[in-house]
Amino acid sequence: MVYCLRENDYLGENVMPLEAQLKAQFQSLSNLIRRDSIDLTTRSGSGHPTTCLSAADLMTWLFFREIRLDASNLDHPHADKYIFSKGHAAPLLYSLMYRLGYLEAAEMETFRKIGSRLEGHPTLRLPGVVAATGSLGQGLSIGVGMAEVYKREGRDQRVYVLLGDGEINEGQVWEAAMLAGSLKVDNLVAIVDRNKIQQSNFCDSIVNAEPLHDKFTAFGWEVARINGHDLDAVAEVFAQARSNRGKPFAIIADTEKGFPVSFLSGKLKRHGVALKADERDLAYGELPVGDDLDIAAFTVSKQNFAPLEKTAVKIDYLMNGSEFDASKEQAARAAYGDALKLMGGLSDKVWVVDGDVSNSTYSERFAQAYPDRHIECGIAEQNMISVGVGVAATGKVALANSFARFFERAFDQIEMGAYSQANLKVVGSHIGVSIGEDGASQMAMADCGFMRAIPGSVVLCPADYVSTFYLTREILNHDGFCYMRTFRGNRPVLYPIDESFPIGGCKVLKASDADKAVVVASGYVVHEALKAAEELAEKGLNLRVIDAYSLKPFPAEEIRQICEEVGGPAVFTLEDHYATGGVGDAVLEALNGSGIRVEKLAVTAFPESGKPEDLLAKYGVDAAALVKRVQEVLG
Amino acid sequence: MVYCLRENDYLGENVMPLEAQLKAQFQSLSNLIRRDSIDLTTRSGSGHPTTCLSAADLMTWLFFREIRLDASNLDHPHADKYIFSKGHAAPLLYSLMYRLGYLEAAEMETFRKIGSRLEGHPTLRLPGVVAATGSLGQGLSIGVGMAEVYKREGRDQRVYVLLGDGEINEGQVWEAAMLAGSLKVDNLVAIVDRNKIQQSNFCDSIVNAEPLHDKFTAFGWEVARINGHDLDAVAEVFAQARSNRGKPFAIIADTEKGFPVSFLSGKLKRHGVALKADERDLAYGELPVGDDLDIAAFTVSKQNFAPLEKTAVKIDYLMNGSEFDASKEQAARAAYGDALKLMGGLSDKVWVVDGDVSNSTYSERFAQAYPDRHIECGIAEQNMISVGVGVAATGKVALANSFARFFERAFDQIEMGAYSQANLKVVGSHIGVSIGEDGASQMAMADCGFMRAIPGSVVLCPADYVSTFYLTREILNHDGFCYMRTFRGNRPVLYPIDESFPIGGCKVLKASDADKAVVVASGYVVHEALKAAEELAEKGLNLRVIDAYSLKPFPAEEIRQICEEVGGPAVFTLEDHYATGGVGDAVLEALNGSGIRVEKLAVTAFPESGKPEDLLAKYGVDAAALVKRVQEVLG
Repeated sequence: MVYCLRENDYLGENVMPLEAQLKAQFQSLSNLIRRDSIDLTTRSGSGHPTTCLSAADLMTWLFFREIRLDASNLDHPHADKYIFSKGHAAPLLYSLMYRLGYLEAAEMETFRKIGSRLEGHPTLRLPGVVAATGSLGQGLSIGVGMAEVYKREGRDQRVYVLLGDGEINEGQVWEAAMLAGSLKVDNLVAIVDRNKIQQSNFCDSIVNAEPLHDKFTAFGWEVARINGHDLDAVAEVFAQARSNRGKPFAIIADTEKGFPVSFLSGKLKRHGVALKADERDLAYGELPVGDDLDIAAFTVSKQNFAPLEKTAVKIDYLMNGSEFDASKEQAARAAYGDALKLMGGLSDKVWVVDGDVSNSTYSERFAQAYPDRHIECGIAEQNMISVGVGVAATGKVALANSFARFFERAFDQIEMGAYSQANLKVVGSHIGVSIGEDGASQMAMADCGFMRAIPGSVVLCPADYVSTFYLTREILNHDGFCYMRTFRGNRPVLYPIDESFPIGGCKVLKASDADKAVVVASGYVVHEALKAAEELAEKGLNLRVIDAYSLKPFPAEEIRQICEEVGGPAVFTLEDHYATGGVGDAVLEALNGSGIRVEKLAVTAFPESGKPEDLLAKYGVDAAALVKRVQEVLG
Repeated sequence: MVYCLRENDYLGENVMPLEAQLKAQFQSLSNLIRRDSIDLTTRSGSGHPTTCLSAADLMTWLFFREIRLDASNLDHPHADKYIFSKGHAAPLLYSLMYRLGYLEAAEMETFRKIGSRLEGHPTLRLPGVVAATGSLGQGLSIGVGMAEVYKREGRDQRVYVLLGDGEINEGQVWEAAMLAGSLKVDNLVAIVDRNKIQQSNFCDSIVNAEPLHDKFTAFGWEVARINGHDLDAVAEVFAQARSNRGKPFAIIADTEKGFPVSFLSGKLKRHGVALKADERDLAYGELPVGDDLDIAAFTVSKQNFAPLEKTAVKIDYLMNGSEFDASKEQAARAAYGDALKLMGGLSDKVWVVDGDVSNSTYSERFAQAYPDRHIECGIAEQNMISVGVGVAATGKVALANSFARFFERAFDQIEMGAYSQANLKVVGSHIGVSIGEDGASQMAMADCGFMRAIPGSVVLCPADYVSTFYLTREILNHDGFCYMRTFRGNRPVLYPIDESFPIGGCKVLKASDADKAVVVASGYVVHEALKAAEELAEKGLNLRVIDAYSLKPFPAEEIRQICEEVGGPAVFTLEDHYATGGVGDAVLEALNGSGIRVEKLAVTAFPESGKPEDLLAKYGVDAAALVKRVQEVLG
């Protein structure tokens, strides 16, 4: 048996059985935290009290005895990290913060009210929160990302992740578990609050998750199963976790939802239901707090770490012509891979996460050069994104790569990452029907609308090597969420190597005083627009061609001015994307109220397999389709 | 040891060791299938030959000896079903179909060409394919849905799912595995082709998936691990699978990618690379096919099943007033739950899949009434959607429910479902900031753009009880993918119970000859639009208010006519959704080129926690914001 002393250090060397006095004190403290959690939800009339009660003994011990926090700065980069992956236990977190002295009583009154840092689920508004939670199943992945960075950098920091036992239905938990086991992330501790009740029913009546111990073991974890309300067991298991080496550590804590309150404990229909005031008072009666409780004596975990400087990435690389052969056609993905490798050498803050297909996205060029800053996550896109969010939470810029299509299964994780203010860049290759023979299941056709909808997002879709190269630099330097889509096939280089591509800009690729209409295109099909314009020019019909590489921010004012200047019965848009959410819709918005009609050329059916040129033709997004439409409209 | 006889029945009673002659014949057949798979990819210059070779022995035995197919109709509802979840093994499937006589040689020439049924990954164009694959990790879930329906209906049918060993990185596989284990779906057989090589590297260098046997065991499966190139073992394991009862059955087949061709077998950099013609010929030399091969003798699995009538759902329920209390405010989700329960009683083709939160989406009202047609999938949205696709593939209409936000992590699965022509209805509750205190992680804010982008989709967002009730009927009757968003809070009933709500329609809620402008709103905030209109009417400023409940098909022509008739400097749109992809963009498109400006009121920042009314006000999508904007614009 290994028990903690009150004054033990954090290396697990100096331990002995718990003193009776400490135990009594702790029981009072844990009950006080329970009372606070109940009170928060009762006063706000909403929230999840019972899920706080089940985890209270575990998390109170963790926060008051185990975890190393900075006394003044919860966000200190050298502190241990905690993630309430079961984000609906937010009141428990806030109660712990309050009793640890990080929150004042007055702020506790603001819970779930507009303007408060104490939101319904934990958000970045509150110091110490590394990523917003509330959409279940993402916290363990975030923890893997953080812990892996600490491990590789030789930093003595642990990451504790609190999971619900309903939450472990989510496959992303098992993606994270598999990766953590494979990487042997032994500074990661998962705490599964096995309280046996989900929102709608008993867990095992919904999906039987047992044998849970065997599951984590089979996924490469060291596992301990304890009674999560037995203080001796709780103390012991955290000491075990602390001295554990070689594998990630899972604590499966059998608890009761609502424990120990008689009318809550193990009862259904209490999930997400705040207690009425009279129920709260009854509950308090079953949560005794001794008069002699000395909270200050517990706060051994608060230390004063040295400050650590945090600098943003600022890369000012200019191309010199050695990067590529400008005489050859190039794929956007190749430019991305080259830029990533070159710029990865200029800042060690650049980290990359991959999903097996790095030899398709060309992020392998970075991976091979900087394996110490590369995390291969396998074919598990949800986990990859959230691992990236975790990497970013350690102060890095994290780039996540896959086929753009496969990110669709991680849109929730991406939105949570942007919401978490993660410095995350998502780069998707293989956009549109122009990938050809592999067929619709591999084509990103519906990505732009979602990505553009995310508040504050940057969405880029470059058309050649040079612009892709420089836009890679721009997203590295931009502090916040960016999405860039790259294409698969080789296409001519459009720009000189000293061209600049600011986020929010666009390029006029072809212009004359005789232009009769404007074409706005984005990505791969910019080349089709140019081809059409050349063909029509030979027939005496001149088009102005715009490369709208920045879908968000969209250069609305500039494009509107050009369209108004050129005039004509319509503006033409061309995109290798479905008709909703892409450049056509962006131009529609830019021309809002102008009276200028937008003739949108986009894909409107599920594509099939075939040669890229055949598909572009079939779905009406190639040069010939544009020529035809322009001639129809311009007569 | 249990071996199959050539003429055994399918109940596993009558078995003995393989004859030597059969074994030799089979080896020839299996090599012929391998040759075909190589040839397809060589001739098309793309595709994945090596992954076909590893699975060839397993799948050739399965298709020629085990599976029960109808001789003339691969889609026969009484046939066994197969899912190539590793969809890039499509050439193997096509080669099997060819040698079984379902495909002609001429059609084999069309592989990966435009217009072909033989696409890069399997699609519904080809008979026998129950769902399109190619986006990995979804097939086992589809199999669970199908097998569970067969089991509950007492139908003696098995579902075989072929998985890659890279694919099992996907958490969705473990979501499906957990549910299958929990439900004891013992007519489901997973075949894991453990060929040890993924696209970019050896599997275990990417993510170590071992011990794989322990993983499936811990998830509640019966597991057999075999050498997937040992014919005796292959024969035995399928016999075991056939007689297995009480648990789903997993075959983990150790194979070699590219087996047995010396220059392919176990080699990296051969994933997704077609052989050149000379390599193909070399490979043929290592794939001997005996002159005495008698393929016809193998086709014992092709039977003639009785035809089964398949009828569409056609529910003509009309409300009679007993459904709800019209004097009380009602939530859209309540109308959905009531309609689902009522109409679930009118057609036993209606099935429902849930993700734990049925007491929030109110689908529990169906679940309690018809538990035999309800599958609870737990907190695992990707699996839930694909289980729904599987249920639909058995000829049912499948409704999948969760908070609309949580579907974002399953957008790929949803798009694959629509692409698979599944009769799937996705119904998301808790839309927008109007859910209140739970905060942004629970709010669907970016769903409409993606759902509208999907080809052929129907997207609905009703504003009251009656419209939600009838639109539930409409999506049940509509053959194809539909998405409906329902709101959480209670709001007044707007319509009489005999109103009709066709898909593609809209409703004018307020109109007069004196109208000065049009407001188009959707969902919860229709009530805010009405409130604003009443307030402004008192000041002598009349608005025409439109309830745009059908976001797709959008009644563009009707709304454009109304806007042109009413006139005014702008049309106002109001939505509890981000500014991209929703009703504002739909109206922009409807008014394309008209010169009428759209004043879009939508949410443009990540929302916080708070009371619904406070949030609607803060993000500028309530009646007051609309009044202010209208007054600013109309002077």
